[in-house]
Amino acid sequence: MADLEEEVLARIERQRKLRPRFRDSVITMAHGAGGKATHTLVAGLFAHAYANDALSELADAARLDIAGAPVAFTTDAFVVKPLRFPGGSIGELAINGTVNDLAVSGAKPLAIATAFVLEEGLDANVLKAEVEAMARAAEAAGVPVVAGDTKVVERGKADGMYITTTGIGVGDERARLSATSIRPGDHILLSGYIADHGTAIMLARGELELDADVVSDTRSVWPFVVALLDAAAPHVRVMRDPTRGGVATVLNELAGDADVGVVLDEDRVPVRPPVKGACEILGIDPMYVANEGQLIAVVAEEAAPHALAALRSVPGGEDAVDVGRVADQPAGMVLVNTTFGGTRIMDMLIGDPLPRIC
Amino acid sequence: MADLEEEVLARIERQRKLRPRFRDSVITMAHGAGGKATHTLVAGLFAHAYANDALSELADAARLDIAGAPVAFTTDAFVVKPLRFPGGSIGELAINGTVNDLAVSGAKPLAIATAFVLEEGLDANVLKAEVEAMARAAEAAGVPVVAGDTKVVERGKADGMYITTTGIGVGDERARLSATSIRPGDHILLSGYIADHGTAIMLARGELELDADVVSDTRSVWPFVVALLDAAAPHVRVMRDPTRGGVATVLNELAGDADVGVVLDEDRVPVRPPVKGACEILGIDPMYVANEGQLIAVVAEEAAPHALAALRSVPGGEDAVDVGRVADQPAGMVLVNTTFGGTRIMDMLIGDPLPRIC
Repeated sequence: MADLEEEVLARIERQRKLRPRFRDSVITMAHGAGGKATHTLVAGLFAHAYANDALSELADAARLDIAGAPVAFTTDAFVVKPLRFPGGSIGELAINGTVNDLAVSGAKPLAIATAFVLEEGLDANVLKAEVEAMARAAEAAGVPVVAGDTKVVERGKADGMYITTTGIGVGDERARLSATSIRPGDHILLSGYIADHGTAIMLARGELELDADVVSDTRSVWPFVVALLDAAAPHVRVMRDPTRGGVATVLNELAGDADVGVVLDEDRVPVRPPVKGACEILGIDPMYVANEGQLIAVVAEEAAPHALAALRSVPGGEDAVDVGRVADQPAGMVLVNTTFGGTRIMDMLIGDPLPRIC
Repeated sequence: MADLEEEVLARIERQRKLRPRFRDSVITMAHGAGGKATHTLVAGLFAHAYANDALSELADAARLDIAGAPVAFTTDAFVVKPLRFPGGSIGELAINGTVNDLAVSGAKPLAIATAFVLEEGLDANVLKAEVEAMARAAEAAGVPVVAGDTKVVERGKADGMYITTTGIGVGDERARLSATSIRPGDHILLSGYIADHGTAIMLARGELELDADVVSDTRSVWPFVVALLDAAAPHVRVMRDPTRGGVATVLNELAGDADVGVVLDEDRVPVRPPVKGACEILGIDPMYVANEGQLIAVVAEEAAPHALAALRSVPGGEDAVDVGRVADQPAGMVLVNTTFGGTRIMDMLIGDPLPRIC
């Protein structure tokens, strides 16, 4: 523990000194992985250039005021490879991903726009299948696709297709969500098994010669959000969907934004045995692997049991768990109580061990 | 003229019989060119799959109602090659293109979201330059960039970068725009010289070994829209920005949507001499070449002179012209009175003579 304390103190010192600056000379896969390099790019380049209040929050969705209504606005590019995988496909992911960014910001999805970059020579049936998958996912999420655009690039570019989806949502008036409202003692709730999506993609690429039965968790998390707000709206501090960079990255962002510590109990975080096995072979901690249908909520201590029960009452939320709590120290960091009784620091994702996952 | 009349009658018959169905087996560059193939893809596949009122209008922007406010919502992917060209760059184009789709739908741009697909190995200074160009263009258009996303794909997969921008605008209450309000006798106003953008891109590629001084017209057309609404709001039937597929494609869409004929006077349409020269060498009619800062407005006859004067009063609109009028026949088609005293049919763009122009 002495080493850990020293490391914690040294890191706090370094983080206090550092404001993110984008100084890289070349774009690497890591800039798209959702971890430290992405954070530096976004905070150090984009937020600086486009300086405005809505963007500088760097939340899953920007907040706007339209005719007095709180409107959420979010965009995501999808470049997942392969286009189809067990449990879903790029089109389904593109709808659910944007629905979920709205949902975790407390906004009911209202409309989606889609922009396709297609590769010349793409089989039209592949495109039709994705358009139909998107239509089904949008219907399941109760949101219409109202606008679109299509561009085509030459053979060899775009891997079949890239899809960008952008969503507008209207904020649920009960949702008063902000990382800065997080307080020591709050509980961390997780809606279910982690790392299914990223692992399913890696296995679908066939590079591992593993034949595990892992299926992407892609789905709308809006039903979880409704259940949480119905059960405990004033006590829900913030919600996130742990996609790129996984649970580890989301908790680090929250710890940093709220300037609190987060303590996670590793053995309470549910990981399916085939996912655990595949991650071991890959040499990757499932905490860093993308999810596409899970939700993390920070909830005040007094409401945590009730909120957890609400999550578990939603179909697909049966495996929800209370995985940890917020502490005042070490501020800005995530500690994990390991299965073996030790404690380790869980940092943001560095590099990109799982490229093109969403 | 007998041949022309026969051709007109035969076409009317064919168009009446045809409803767009997407039957192509493979995606080609033409599907991204904004002409006939794009129209069939959008109307035959997307609009069918996502069936809803907002999308089925297939306008430049979808219309939504948020808290009683008329909201416009539009998205565009940009894949222009090269990334920088005389007069602009992909980032500037991405902001202005989306601003203009909102503007011509009569909506004041309120917020923009940007999604980047970056190529691994991209020089970070190239990205910085585009982010700064976007910030400048957004500031010039008076609209904040409030949300974003970044993905990275492997070398060779994205030509440096692709950018998707999505915009939200709030409808100007004076704008009552619809192609179905177009009436015989209406005038067609054009804000200035055509084909500058597409020609500048082709020359910038260096494939022509031509060294003409042609500069892209990329800019926000919102000032033109404000001037038209200030001068003649109740008489403005519809506005469009003639991007991919050019003036010819926009007029064909309007003729089809309104079920009217459009008669254009070729020698009134302003084309700069170097643009005319380059188009002749390319074997392309400037009417089909993309513009990124021009506006076409259909205005009632009685308001046309006043509206034209308003356009000309806007900086950059000095060369605006009244280029033609609406007739009741031949419904759904565009006729051009040529410089040489003849008349020809100007169809929608077929194929993609100028790929990757925006």
